[in-house]
Amino acid sequence: SGTRDVVAAYWAAAEARNWDVFGALVADDVFYELPQTGERVQGREAYVRFNSEGFPGEWHVIIDRIVVGERDAVSLVRFTDTNGSQTGLCFFELDHDGLITSIRDFWPEPYAPPAERARLVERY
Amino acid sequence: SGTRDVVAAYWAAAEARNWDVFGALVADDVFYELPQTGERVQGREAYVRFNSEGFPGEWHVIIDRIVVGERDAVSLVRFTDTNGSQTGLCFFELDHDGLITSIRDFWPEPYAPPAERARLVERY
Repeated sequence: SGTRDVVAAYWAAAEARNWDVFGALVADDVFYELPQTGERVQGREAYVRFNSEGFPGEWHVIIDRIVVGERDAVSLVRFTDTNGSQTGLCFFELDHDGLITSIRDFWPEPYAPPAERARLVERY
Repeated sequence: SGTRDVVAAYWAAAEARNWDVFGALVADDVFYELPQTGERVQGREAYVRFNSEGFPGEWHVIIDRIVVGERDAVSLVRFTDTNGSQTGLCFFELDHDGLITSIRDFWPEPYAPPAERARLVERY
């Protein structure tokens, strides 16, 4: 679908540091939110700057999966930098021109499995 | 869509502790994975037990959003118990009978926003 292509192009542009292409995929008034930190960025110019200047150094992103709705999608990605590798979940909303209007991402960290339910699970 | 209804029914059954309905929504060989802890549960019976016995005490779950693909979906939920409230992200896959065959969830925690990008964001 078109929505899947837009999300794939978004991550490909980020991986390539092609900020012109990246910026052209988002709406003028794109809205970004990171609920875990309470950070927010509004507008294309600020959002491109956040991505191009906010993550200096070596990093790579690989798409693991995209769940595609009609005008929304969720990507599961693996982000790797010099500190190691992290899982990222990113919600996208698109407008009728296929531009990304909102992005909300989540970065869950590993934690110890609760001992009280150990008898109910396997480990991997 | 049918997929949206199945995911909504899954959370409604969990909230109601209606484990018969809950179990009837998942496939015989349902596969559950919690990548953050490396916990895994296989099969309907074990998965119902994990849910019915693994989370004793008072808790509630509210659906914030569901992104619906054809045979897959992602739900964003708010889970509240005596310790407070958490965001949960849950990936579902369904078979052609509409039964849930796999569930993978993520529980991202709040963290401090990196100081080095403070100039690039607003706070909320």
